[in-house]
Amino acid sequence: MPTMDDIARKVGVSKGTVSKALNGAPDISDTLRKTILDTAVALGYTRARRGAVRTLCVFIQNMDYAKPEDFGTDIITGFRQMAEPSGYGVKVVQLSTELQKSISYDAYMLREGYLGALFLGLTLLDPWMKEFPRSHTPAVLYDNLIRGNPTVSTLGIDNNEVIGQAVDALYGMGHRKIGYLSGALGSHIYQVRYKSFFTEVRRRRLPASSSLAGYSYYFSETLETHLPRLLAQGVTAILCSSDLLAHTVLIRCLEMGIRVPEQLSIVGFDDLPFCAHTAPPLTTIRQDRLQLGKSGYYALDSLLNGVPISSLLLHGQLILRGSTGPAPAHPCGEKRT
Amino acid sequence: MPTMDDIARKVGVSKGTVSKALNGAPDISDTLRKTILDTAVALGYTRARRGAVRTLCVFIQNMDYAKPEDFGTDIITGFRQMAEPSGYGVKVVQLSTELQKSISYDAYMLREGYLGALFLGLTLLDPWMKEFPRSHTPAVLYDNLIRGNPTVSTLGIDNNEVIGQAVDALYGMGHRKIGYLSGALGSHIYQVRYKSFFTEVRRRRLPASSSLAGYSYYFSETLETHLPRLLAQGVTAILCSSDLLAHTVLIRCLEMGIRVPEQLSIVGFDDLPFCAHTAPPLTTIRQDRLQLGKSGYYALDSLLNGVPISSLLLHGQLILRGSTGPAPAHPCGEKRT
Repeated sequence: MPTMDDIARKVGVSKGTVSKALNGAPDISDTLRKTILDTAVALGYTRARRGAVRTLCVFIQNMDYAKPEDFGTDIITGFRQMAEPSGYGVKVVQLSTELQKSISYDAYMLREGYLGALFLGLTLLDPWMKEFPRSHTPAVLYDNLIRGNPTVSTLGIDNNEVIGQAVDALYGMGHRKIGYLSGALGSHIYQVRYKSFFTEVRRRRLPASSSLAGYSYYFSETLETHLPRLLAQGVTAILCSSDLLAHTVLIRCLEMGIRVPEQLSIVGFDDLPFCAHTAPPLTTIRQDRLQLGKSGYYALDSLLNGVPISSLLLHGQLILRGSTGPAPAHPCGEKRT
Repeated sequence: MPTMDDIARKVGVSKGTVSKALNGAPDISDTLRKTILDTAVALGYTRARRGAVRTLCVFIQNMDYAKPEDFGTDIITGFRQMAEPSGYGVKVVQLSTELQKSISYDAYMLREGYLGALFLGLTLLDPWMKEFPRSHTPAVLYDNLIRGNPTVSTLGIDNNEVIGQAVDALYGMGHRKIGYLSGALGSHIYQVRYKSFFTEVRRRRLPASSSLAGYSYYFSETLETHLPRLLAQGVTAILCSSDLLAHTVLIRCLEMGIRVPEQLSIVGFDDLPFCAHTAPPLTTIRQDRLQLGKSGYYALDSLLNGVPISSLLLHGQLILRGSTGPAPAHPCGEKRT
């Protein structure tokens, strides 16, 4: 484990200067501070775990957390509920591409004095994703996977398991041709769900042609291109990669005169609070966000204590509501041909 | 959550009788005790989590734990190191097929007054494995997977990740044809490793014919049939599903006049203490057993507190020692044809 002395020797300054640079003292030039930070990162220096102030960071992007019903809110609450009584401060930081391009993850954490971080809403294109295979500062990634770094953990629900439960439930209602609609596959977790959908329909020996799925960054493209394509193939149920997408599909189907669930069953993902209040209420897959936040803290605290957690997954839960029902005798798409 | 009153009403006895039956009082007939236990299980009754004595159980079989170097010892130690300071008693129970056939898992736990269990060494053929999809008493299964029960968790290392690291390391040493030898595939984790081996050699675009693998319950069959078959195909490295198997293969190769690692590289799995002392010392994949035990406690405590952990996997670690080295210019098998 490298020390401040090692950094001082390497840069050719005193230990006091290194300490000042790492602790944000104002009487150090920006250039020297950057050199010291970069050297500290190159040496693999990380903060002592037993300082006076111990602060953890929650990075968030692509996810709201201002209102009680926002997806990120309960995750952060659960994280705080565990971290704060254990003596940690928690700082929530809005992540951006600009921030990631301006400084490396390890250097940012050193500069700010944070011991470790939980990441919410990272995509595969985020600049720091390229650093995680070799970063030194403990990081827990919700719904993202980095292999081979003992200081990085994955947090999430077991998507394979719960998509299997959704397919089983639809199968039990008589559905024999199921479609899948997804947001863009630039997200790790959307790739996992997409793959899992096909694994599970194959397991049930149901049609598994890739033409039964559609994905797009734009809801409009999904509604105008993929949804009609799936219906024309005679699907009687559609699984969606998120509640927002499922709700949009539900509304479009009702506009098209398709009765839900009598003619088409629709399943969402996440169980956002609005799902219980759509017409009909949306069947979906619940992620317990409070427990995810608590488990995120546990994973991060474990990494900080040298327990190399690779992944911590929770059981999801299929919530059956009014948007799913027995398969129709004739798929609604048939009438249209 | 069903209560003792519910059980009493169902059986048609007093609550006092139910309490006696559940707490092992001697003045209850065996028949009545069995009826009460069966009814309690059918109703989904589980022990209160806040009693005077709170005991967790570690079931173990197919695994030694008497000596410090045995595989189970550190797992149990890690589990105790977390459980006992948290106020739990820990009881280690040798599991057997007879015990599992004589009573259901839920009924056994109720009768003995254990709140939850960690299972070490279960196989796919164990009678209780059929009960776990619907059991009520929290259970953490090391190296086994049960889907869809929120009271059952999987514990282990991330085999896919670390087998990928082993294949990458061999690839980096120039190996282009790698073989795999395994114990019988009646074990969930041996199935996972077998599948993972082929995923990883395919990822590296290396030969991935199933003829490059062999598995058997008997070491003798592996040595007499599978090992010569792999060598005849020109493999320059062999990955084994356990250290014991790898050590046996190593000895046989030396007997056959094959120099390790000059002519053949061998990799084990587990990093048992003897691996550092074989000749040459065995390259292997380390499972940190103390941390596995601690994490097993965390998963079980989480289940007892309603946090539905599906799986908790640790990063494994490739330990490079003398049994692996640069690929030979000519595989040793070639000389034999």
